[in-house]
Order: sequence, then structure tokens, then C-alpha cells
Amino acid sequence: MFVWVLFFQNTSSVTLPETLLFVSTLDGSLHAVSKRTGAIKWTLKEDPVLQVPIHVEEPAFLPDPNDGSLYTLGGKNNEGLTKLPFTIPELVQASPCRSSDGILYMGKKQDIWYVIDLMTGEKQQTLTSSFAESLCPSTSLLYLGRTEYTITMYDTKKKELRWNATYFDYAATLPDEDIKYKMSHFVSNGDGLVVTVDSESGDVLWIQNYASPVVAFYIWQLEGLRKVMHTNVGIETLRYLTFMSGEVGHITKWKYPFPKETETKSKLTPTLYVGKYSTSLYASPSMVHEGVTVVPRGSAIPLLEGPKTEGVTIEDSGECVITPSTDVKFSGRLKGKSKLHYWNDWLLIGHHETPLSAPTKILEKFPSNLPKRPENVIPADSEKATIEKVCGKVS
Amino acid sequence: MFVWVLFFQNTSSVTLPETLLFVSTLDGSLHAVSKRTGAIKWTLKEDPVLQVPIHVEEPAFLPDPNDGSLYTLGGKNNEGLTKLPFTIPELVQASPCRSSDGILYMGKKQDIWYVIDLMTGEKQQTLTSSFAESLCPSTSLLYLGRTEYTITMYDTKKKELRWNATYFDYAATLPDEDIKYKMSHFVSNGDGLVVTVDSESGDVLWIQNYASPVVAFYIWQLEGLRKVMHTNVGIETLRYLTFMSGEVGHITKWKYPFPKETETKSKLTPTLYVGKYSTSLYASPSMVHEGVTVVPRGSAIPLLEGPKTEGVTIEDSGECVITPSTDVKFSGRLKGKSKLHYWNDWLLIGHHETPLSAPTKILEKFPSNLPKRPENVIPADSEKATIEKVCGKVS
Repeated sequence: MFVWVLFFQNTSSVTLPETLLFVSTLDGSLHAVSKRTGAIKWTLKEDPVLQVPIHVEEPAFLPDPNDGSLYTLGGKNNEGLTKLPFTIPELVQASPCRSSDGILYMGKKQDIWYVIDLMTGEKQQTLTSSFAESLCPSTSLLYLGRTEYTITMYDTKKKELRWNATYFDYAATLPDEDIKYKMSHFVSNGDGLVVTVDSESGDVLWIQNYASPVVAFYIWQLEGLRKVMHTNVGIETLRYLTFMSGEVGHITKWKYPFPKETETKSKLTPTLYVGKYSTSLYASPSMVHEGVTVVPRGSAIPLLEGPKTEGVTIEDSGECVITPSTDVKFSGRLKGKSKLHYWNDWLLIGHHETPLSAPTKILEKFPSNLPKRPENVIPADSEKATIEKVCGKVS
Repeated sequence: MFVWVLFFQNTSSVTLPETLLFVSTLDGSLHAVSKRTGAIKWTLKEDPVLQVPIHVEEPAFLPDPNDGSLYTLGGKNNEGLTKLPFTIPELVQASPCRSSDGILYMGKKQDIWYVIDLMTGEKQQTLTSSFAESLCPSTSLLYLGRTEYTITMYDTKKKELRWNATYFDYAATLPDEDIKYKMSHFVSNGDGLVVTVDSESGDVLWIQNYASPVVAFYIWQLEGLRKVMHTNVGIETLRYLTFMSGEVGHITKWKYPFPKETETKSKLTPTLYVGKYSTSLYASPSMVHEGVTVVPRGSAIPLLEGPKTEGVTIEDSGECVITPSTDVKFSGRLKGKSKLHYWNDWLLIGHHETPLSAPTKILEKFPSNLPKRPENVIPADSEKATIEKVCGKVS
């Protein structure tokens, strides 16, 4: 049995990995923070969690940085946003496959190990299947495994790349069941706000902002990362709840699911938040309160061609679309592109009624290497025949 | 629905993909052959099915080129060959993971599409997630997907690569159940001999030698490869059976499993064949008749340190170890390496009693992304504690 040996040269400066919480953010940072205060000890900066190349114009698919889920946009009947029954990692595993309309799917999965100095967060070593680069050894090392999943769709008829995306995920298991995790983390969509409360009492323990949307929390247990759950909440809702709770710890309404007896304003509704990081759109579940504007499901979302129906847009309040990240980038990204294009992206950003799963039918030939969950079925009759047989290895 | 359009410019030269059989060999060739005669129409030459770098000295693991299964060699109690409960593709999927003795596992999966001219076998296009290279378009195209799986084991204590291997596999599904495949293929281990018989009558249909051991057969059905089963047989056994059957088609004893009423000599025993391709050993199931020497299970196999017990070696007949591929390469590979090393490899080559599965115990933390088959359990108490927790993401 490999045993963690931590040398206690100086008791005051010693950091036990069990006292740390690891916070993964959309921009590719992994912050090691104090469990007690949320203060950052060190940060490992790697590639962003999502990478969608900009040369693919149409935002055909929106990935969820929390787990690699996929949403589609548009469709023949203006269904708006639709959830696909598989994640990027699952598609990568099922590839290579080919759809009936001539789209080839190619997957790539690549693991990397970072060997990190526990005290400083400095990388001591980086290991992949193709290279091993070693630095000075240290006594207290963390081994962090990260996987890069890339899915590429190539249109054989148009002879062009249709879409591709890269999703990064740290290797982690769930915590042991016998260890009760006593904190609940609420993160805001669109910025890096985190409110951590005591799971038992509901008291607010700490509030931090990590500058970029948080996609995962991990604790260190038995020499490895264990993923702990978090709840995605709309930024205005998180601010509202924080405001309502007054001073830290004064209100104990933070237990999730929120008790029904709280006033109507505190009743939260699940929605899907569409945000933008760098040049690409992403989607993420989000709980919101009544003050937040939500685009109704199935309403005609303005696409590249411009709005098809009037009156169903997101212009009414604006409070749900203005987030620090998108606010700053909007004007800067206009150069060299049509204003209409980005205005439409801009209209998408915000909260949408939780989309239905894509209309589904069981694949005739279900790939044997894709988990056979009931929801792993393929949408039919959508505009994108692409999706119809996305996972048939052949067809 | 994407429909295959084959233009019949000249009826005599037309090749329907359904008339072809695709034969994948260890050296990385994919031969498109006539179903009727086995004659090669064209060959796609790619990377060998297995690649095990030569700088890793110890033959700790032997991969099976038929499906990527893994066998281990040696062990504290001289168990000899042992079968591991997972394949290279499964390990790649479960990675990154870390064993209790400090071995880091890194996986890589990479898909590639070959777009092939059906008439000539010439590559028209090669597509991966990172590049798309296009040549002249053709009217009759085959889309062949191939996946590269690489598993790497890095020893964090010795600060060195322990073992790595790459396994290639064409994307294929099983044939539709309603289509009865009427041929049985028998392939020899160690060379490229193939005997194809009629499944119903047992008549020999054709005999071919594809120069390198055959690892898979595919047919073309509904626009994709479908894998058809084959039986691996010892080379002497296949020659013996072919000799016994006299002229092609005269004897109808080729139905598998072979009828019990045939003489004792024809009763075949399952074994494990150990062969060598290029610089690396591989293992593959093999049916043999009584004339073939089989190393008993659990006998002390000479390792790098030299024989530990005498009298239990493979020197008695030689008929099972002399195959064209190893025969030629033996002398050439001695330069710069100790003769003992290769002599010991040489002693391994041949048929071994079918190894038992490694002594197993259920992983405490079974990776959620590895198929939970009953046999997917991890060996305990083997010399290589490596294997003990090979798939615990953390430990």
C-alpha cells in the first residue's frame, strides 16, 4: 500500500491535503482553497474546461462544462434548446461512428498526470502517454489526473468540419459513503461567485469569488480527488439569496432543496443558463428565483438568419443577461464579424426554461461500448438528421 | 438516409463491397479479398495492430492482438502466464488511475477515418480530430474507422516508464442476426494461413496465406464493417487438418466444434499461443491437436534471470516454436542485446496450457466507466501489486 508521507518540518506551515477544497473553474484553473474560509492557497492553471474552435460558425451544440452534456439549438420546428442523451465523454467512447447523413464522428481521449507540490502548487512533473517530464522531487506530492475529450464531426458531403469541442475533466471518484460531507456549495452561472453553507444548519460559512464560473468541487481523500456536488444558481438569484440572508450565518434557509414554507420569491425554478466563455457558448443547469427572466421553452430563438417571430425575446429586463464575462467581451468581439451574428449570440445568453430531452428513439444498433441507460436514446425527426444515428458505428 | 451510390460504369470491373471480405493482419494490413476465393483485391497498409516499445525490457504483459486482452508473465509463485480481467481498451477507458504501489496509468484513445476508393483501395482522405486531409473525390468510397488505444504505466518510485502498449482496432459491429454468415474461418497462430470452410457442409472453400497472422475478419453490410468470428488454431494443427482433409472439399470434418467421432488426433485442445512480432511478445488463444507440445500451466517459465527449474522447458519437439516469423527474426535481433534475453523470449514462444484468470477480488471502488462484468475484477496477491488496484482511480 502506497502511503502518503508528509514531513512536518514546520508545523505552522504544514498543509494537509485533507484540509483543502479543490475548485475547478471554466477558465482551466484548479484552485486549492481552505475548506474553512475558501481562501485560495495556490492555483494550477491549465487549459480551459471547454474549447470550441471559432472557425465553426454555427452554434449547433452547446456543451455543459459541469459534466460535458450536450444541448442543441434550433431545429426545423423551432424547438429551441434540446438536451441530447449523451455527454462528450460518452460520444468520444462510442466513436468512431457515422451518421446516416454522412457525418463522421472522431473521438480522442488523452490522459495527463500532474505531480504537484502540495505546499506551493508548483508542477513537479507532467506525464502523458507520449512524454514524461521530470523536475526536482518534493516530499509532499499530489497526483492529479486530468482527461481531455475531443469530439470532431466532419461533414463528408460538404467536405468540411461541422463542429468540434474539447472537454477537460479531472479524474475523481465519489466520496466514501461513510464520510458525511458537511458543506453545500452554491455557485453562480456566469461568474465565479461561490456561497458555501453548512449542510446541517444552513448557516453561510463563506462567500468567495473565483473570477470564472465554477464547474466542480473536489476534496482529497485516500490519496485522490473525490467529487462533491454543487448547485448551480443564477447569479442574480445567488446575490438575492445572499442579500436576503443578511449577515453571514443569520438565516438558515440555505438547505437545498429550499424549504417550501419560504416566501414565494425564494421558490427556485430549474432553468438552463446559456453563457459565453471566450468565443463559445455553453449551457449549464441553473436554479433561479422569480425575479429572473426566463425564455419559455420552444419559443423561437433568433438564429443566424435573424428573429423569425417578434415579441419573444430576452430584451425585457436585461438583468439575466448582463454578467461580467459577457458584458466585457461583447463589444470587443465585433471586429471582423457581422454585428447581427453576435447580437444573436448575445440574445441567447441568459436563462431558458429547462429544455426537454430530444425526441428519442432507441438505436437499432446500440453501440456496445456506450452505457445502456434508458435515456441513452437518439433523437428522431429533428432537423439535424446528424443526431438521428449519431452513435450507429455504421449506417 | 445516406445511400450508397455505386456507379456501374463498366459492369465487368465493378466491385460491390458486399462481395468482399476484409482481413486484418498483425502487421497492420487490411486486405480486401474475394469472399469466393480469398484472393487479395487490394491492401490498406497502416500501423501494426500492436506496438510495444523496445526500451521496456521486461515482458511484463502480453497483449492479444485479437481483442486487446492482457496476459501477465511470471509472478512471485511462478504462476507463469495469467489472464487479466480487462483489455487494453477497457484500461484506457478507466484511466487515469493509480495503483497502490505508485504506478500511474495513462490512457489515450484516438480515432481515425480512412476514406478508401472501393476499386483500388487507395486512400482518398484521412480524417482525425486534429486534421482533415483531402484528395480527389471518387464515386465509390468506403469509410473505415480505426481506433488507436495506448496505455502507459509510469512507476513513480523508480521514476521510469514501466510498460506501455498500443493496440489498433477497426470500428465494427456484429452482423445483423437475420443474416446468416455461411463461412467459418480458421487462422493459424504465428503465420498468415487461413482456411475457410462452408459452415453448413464443412467443405473447404479456399486456403490462403496473408503473410502475417490474421487478427480479424470483417464483412461489409449496411455501409459499415461487421466483424465475423474466426477460430485461432496452431499452425501445425491447421497444416495437419488441411493435410488430413486431402484435396480441397473432400473431407467435411471442418465444422467447428469438431465432431467427437473423429479420431483422437483430431480432438483439439484450447491453449494459449505466445508469439513474437517485431520486438514484442503477444499472446493469442489457439486450438491444437495432440501432436503439438504444450507447456503445462504453472510450470516455471524461464524469465530474464534464467531458468529457475530444469526439465520444464519447450526444447523437446521444436515443432511448436518454429514459425516463419520468429525463425527469421531470431538471429537478427541479437545485436546489442544479451543472447540470454532473447533465448528466454525464444523459449516462451509456442503453446501454453490455457492460463487461469488472475486470482481476483472485487475492487472496492469500481470505476464507474468500466463495464461491470463479473470477470472485471482485479487480481490480488500477485507479485505485481501493480495490478491489485490498477483501476482504482485513486487509492
